[in-house]
Amino acid sequence: MGPVFSKFLFQLSFATTATTIVSGAMAERCNFRAYCLFSLCNTIVYCVPAGWIWGSHGFLHKLGAIDIGGSGAVHLVGGSSAFVAAWMLGPRLGRYDHGREPLPMGSPTNALLGLFMLWWGWLAFSSGSVFGVSGHKWKFSARAAVTTINASFGGGVVGLIYSYIRKKGKFDILDLISAVLGSLVSVTGGCAIYRPWEAIVIGAIGGGLACFGIPFFDWLHIDDPVGATSVHGLSAFWGVLAIGLFADGETLLNLTNGRSGLFKGGDAYLLGVQALAAVSFSLWAGFITFLLLWIINKFIPIRMEAHEELLGADLVEHGIRRSGVGVSRALSALGSHPNFDIEAGSAIGTNPGHEMALEKFLKDKGSLRNGNLNHEPISHITNTSIAWAK
Amino acid sequence: MGPVFSKFLFQLSFATTATTIVSGAMAERCNFRAYCLFSLCNTIVYCVPAGWIWGSHGFLHKLGAIDIGGSGAVHLVGGSSAFVAAWMLGPRLGRYDHGREPLPMGSPTNALLGLFMLWWGWLAFSSGSVFGVSGHKWKFSARAAVTTINASFGGGVVGLIYSYIRKKGKFDILDLISAVLGSLVSVTGGCAIYRPWEAIVIGAIGGGLACFGIPFFDWLHIDDPVGATSVHGLSAFWGVLAIGLFADGETLLNLTNGRSGLFKGGDAYLLGVQALAAVSFSLWAGFITFLLLWIINKFIPIRMEAHEELLGADLVEHGIRRSGVGVSRALSALGSHPNFDIEAGSAIGTNPGHEMALEKFLKDKGSLRNGNLNHEPISHITNTSIAWAK
Amino acid sequence: MGPVFSKFLFQLSFATTATTIVSGAMAERCNFRAYCLFSLCNTIVYCVPAGWIWGSHGFLHKLGAIDIGGSGAVHLVGGSSAFVAAWMLGPRLGRYDHGREPLPMGSPTNALLGLFMLWWGWLAFSSGSVFGVSGHKWKFSARAAVTTINASFGGGVVGLIYSYIRKKGKFDILDLISAVLGSLVSVTGGCAIYRPWEAIVIGAIGGGLACFGIPFFDWLHIDDPVGATSVHGLSAFWGVLAIGLFADGETLLNLTNGRSGLFKGGDAYLLGVQALAAVSFSLWAGFITFLLLWIINKFIPIRMEAHEELLGADLVEHGIRRSGVGVSRALSALGSHPNFDIEAGSAIGTNPGHEMALEKFLKDKGSLRNGNLNHEPISHITNTSIAWAK
Repeated sequence: MGPVFSKFLFQLSFATTATTIVSGAMAERCNFRAYCLFSLCNTIVYCVPAGWIWGSHGFLHKLGAIDIGGSGAVHLVGGSSAFVAAWMLGPRLGRYDHGREPLPMGSPTNALLGLFMLWWGWLAFSSGSVFGVSGHKWKFSARAAVTTINASFGGGVVGLIYSYIRKKGKFDILDLISAVLGSLVSVTGGCAIYRPWEAIVIGAIGGGLACFGIPFFDWLHIDDPVGATSVHGLSAFWGVLAIGLFADGETLLNLTNGRSGLFKGGDAYLLGVQALAAVSFSLWAGFITFLLLWIINKFIPIRMEAHEELLGADLVEHGIRRSGVGVSRALSALGSHPNFDIEAGSAIGTNPGHEMALEKFLKDKGSLRNGNLNHEPISHITNTSIAWAK
Repeated sequence: MGPVFSKFLFQLSFATTATTIVSGAMAERCNFRAYCLFSLCNTIVYCVPAGWIWGSHGFLHKLGAIDIGGSGAVHLVGGSSAFVAAWMLGPRLGRYDHGREPLPMGSPTNALLGLFMLWWGWLAFSSGSVFGVSGHKWKFSARAAVTTINASFGGGVVGLIYSYIRKKGKFDILDLISAVLGSLVSVTGGCAIYRPWEAIVIGAIGGGLACFGIPFFDWLHIDDPVGATSVHGLSAFWGVLAIGLFADGETLLNLTNGRSGLFKGGDAYLLGVQALAAVSFSLWAGFITFLLLWIINKFIPIRMEAHEELLGADLVEHGIRRSGVGVSRALSALGSHPNFDIEAGSAIGTNPGHEMALEKFLKDKGSLRNGNLNHEPISHITNTSIAWAK
Repeated sequence: MGPVFSKFLFQLSFATTATTIVSGAMAERCNFRAYCLFSLCNTIVYCVPAGWIWGSHGFLHKLGAIDIGGSGAVHLVGGSSAFVAAWMLGPRLGRYDHGREPLPMGSPTNALLGLFMLWWGWLAFSSGSVFGVSGHKWKFSARAAVTTINASFGGGVVGLIYSYIRKKGKFDILDLISAVLGSLVSVTGGCAIYRPWEAIVIGAIGGGLACFGIPFFDWLHIDDPVGATSVHGLSAFWGVLAIGLFADGETLLNLTNGRSGLFKGGDAYLLGVQALAAVSFSLWAGFITFLLLWIINKFIPIRMEAHEELLGADLVEHGIRRSGVGVSRALSALGSHPNFDIEAGSAIGTNPGHEMALEKFLKDKGSLRNGNLNHEPISHITNTSIAWAK
């Protein structure tokens, strides 16, 4: 039973990654119920390509295609879904009315925290992608960690340079995050077989693609709020091809079936197979995503209504009312509209009970003002005595 | 020395978990010093039941009661303490004046981050609850991870449905968090011995209990701000019983002493023992918690004073002044009260030094307005030159 | 290849730790480009002492100096750099105009989250500092985890007491964080060889030094915003010496080359060598840091200009505009200044597109007010229909 459980956990991580990549591309204007339904069905988008490349009867597996940590079956699949979903949903309201610059982030601190969590997890996941540390495996596991961190170094430096030029000396958090993530995506497929310096190169190119992809898709008016199409799609496409260039025909674990990449004395066969894999993954994921969203849209419109989008999904779908992000303004503009019923609730961080207690205290204090100063402790007014202790 | 150190770390995690569960139930109106004292003494609330079930001389251990990952000795004990502590402290000021709906969360983002951290940690902890990966242990370790994640799937789906119905189509973050945590709590006790599909069922019931428990205790006017009584108490009670129903008499590690649960061909003995364990845990934890808080209350009143609660523990206990959560209002109402001395400090994120520098700059600028425009760099006014570099 | 990769990862963690410790001490007034350059060169500050103590030809290694988890080569080196960098940059604008109390934290919640992440990571890192779990190593690995957590217990209690006295009954978050981190720093060097109760003592002293160091350096007007000089420098100095007092000459892994500390029946030799190591580390790191920053300052002034500091690095270096932290005020004061060109952008969490859509909706609603009530759905005004679905 052990091996089945272990593989289940590994594949579960892959499947949840592939199916959640698309969520960022759909953010801020997708109906939550439609998304839940899509997310459930979306598992099929991952499972079939995973079978192609890792299943013993998969056609890519038989051809000798390689994808050790999931650049193709996870990230390219997720990124292609993200592209189609972002296109189908259309841009957020007024997204391109003020130009194509990214909108200000909700919380750069949290975005960086997310980057670090992905980064740390990536090291563990890449190291785990050789399925163990017994025999010679631990060496490849250690190598995977080294190439992963090296790739992110390459990508990070490219991100710094890219941002420095684009923002005229400023370092944009989004550029840095995208570049590092893009580099991690691109190295994942061959993490256990690259040499350390190759990983830097592969990561640098992957990070660069992530950076340049974001304005490119915005230029096409494909509104992908987190850049998932670039970071996961473009970088992964490169990552799948890179295996055909840099793969080393090592014999200890035989991870490449004895084949070598174009730069390592191999012929173009492996590159050709990797290209076939990349195209197959993209087309499959894009087509099935279109089909699923098209069908779901017949039952639950995938796009929020305009007033819901202006009020924000936090309020409309989850009843969370933030202060200071335009919600109050939208509420006062839309709240009295006869066509929709908005229940606004209390803002986060407020305590209506406390407000009432203060009100009462101030009132009592006011009534005493003409007489004597109120020297009573407030607990005489707002009773906090504990019943059982009396 | 190795085994003692390992067991110490494992038991330390258990003890800190059991004793911190109660903190959430006491939040927002408990005196911090009283809490620190209680928390120290509280360790005894965990240690005795842990001895009952895991110690070689423990009466539950001798009877054959099972608790692999701590549903009983950790979560049921913690949840029972939480119930008693929440009841003894009484509801927060004005908590039920506006009905029994939960108060708006302080930060749903952080709450979800906390859920994810607990979730990830739970996978590692459950996998570690068989104490190693040598021999056959790794299989049970992998199984524990699978049942843990499957249970959270069951609980999460129940949470979505529960919230959808209760909030008329909205998905409340608190419901989702409570349901997932409740499912994790309920599966922990038998994580290494359940079958994957059983874990889904057990988690679904555990998650449901967590969801329904929260409004139930609010109906009783037991104010548990984070729902610890439901999430850890109710779900754990079910989790301890579930072992008596679903336990499989495997022979590789002999985790159940050869006994099977009621649904696996066993008789009612195991279920009876588990029920005895659940009742023993709850009564012990509840009674000792009452005793400890009752004694501590004689020396340090466990309930904050009313004005402290209105100002908030952040300010009163830690000197942290947040903006925009009613603190300014409470300060202006209570600040001039003769009975208490409030030192408010500066709000977080402000810099008094900068404010003064700006003031100075504006003043100098104003004095120049009638004459010529100020073309001096600001550093002439607010000197930042570095002494050693001159 | 395996061992090289593993050592690379381990040393990489050390190098990045040693070079990022200084960042906190330079925060809020260091030019970002100068910092990036310094951070790159800074690696040399770590590499040389690491060679002294761990390299086979290192002079401290030959003398028998011990530093298992990096108290000296990592934390003392980083802390000494922090001291010099903080002194060279000078205090933040107006830092000591209102006394020497620490400025209010930007986000106590995030600071605590950071503490917990360091704490958890520390357990894993200390356990990994014996390079494996094979043979007898696992016992020392487990011991390292126990001493690490015990030290933080000692430091944490000292932090509570220190804060209770200094703040007259309040518990300052910064004190607690500094004390716990200081205790972790101090135990790291000998984590695998101390006894559990010794770790509590060592951590308590380390935590105390961190607490007392912060006001001491503020009294010297060395403005170290996060207290890195105290937490990493002072506590590490003690940590390196403590090995000379408490080291046990165990024979299983021979981590101390058969030598024992002064309190364990050894002579003063080990203590002397440790003192030499501590002094060498401090002087080297301090001197090289001075040299690097002095040279860099010739090309890129390491101190921000005054107006940049008042506007904040978030805005000036990264284009992030936060609301409510004095930025608006600084912008209105400095924005019209002819000498600098400030591009403020939109505040985080705002959506200019939404604001425009709301504007348009309100205008249309206003124009209908005199005629009939607006019963049109808002989507007639702000079109969100999806092109492909028509």
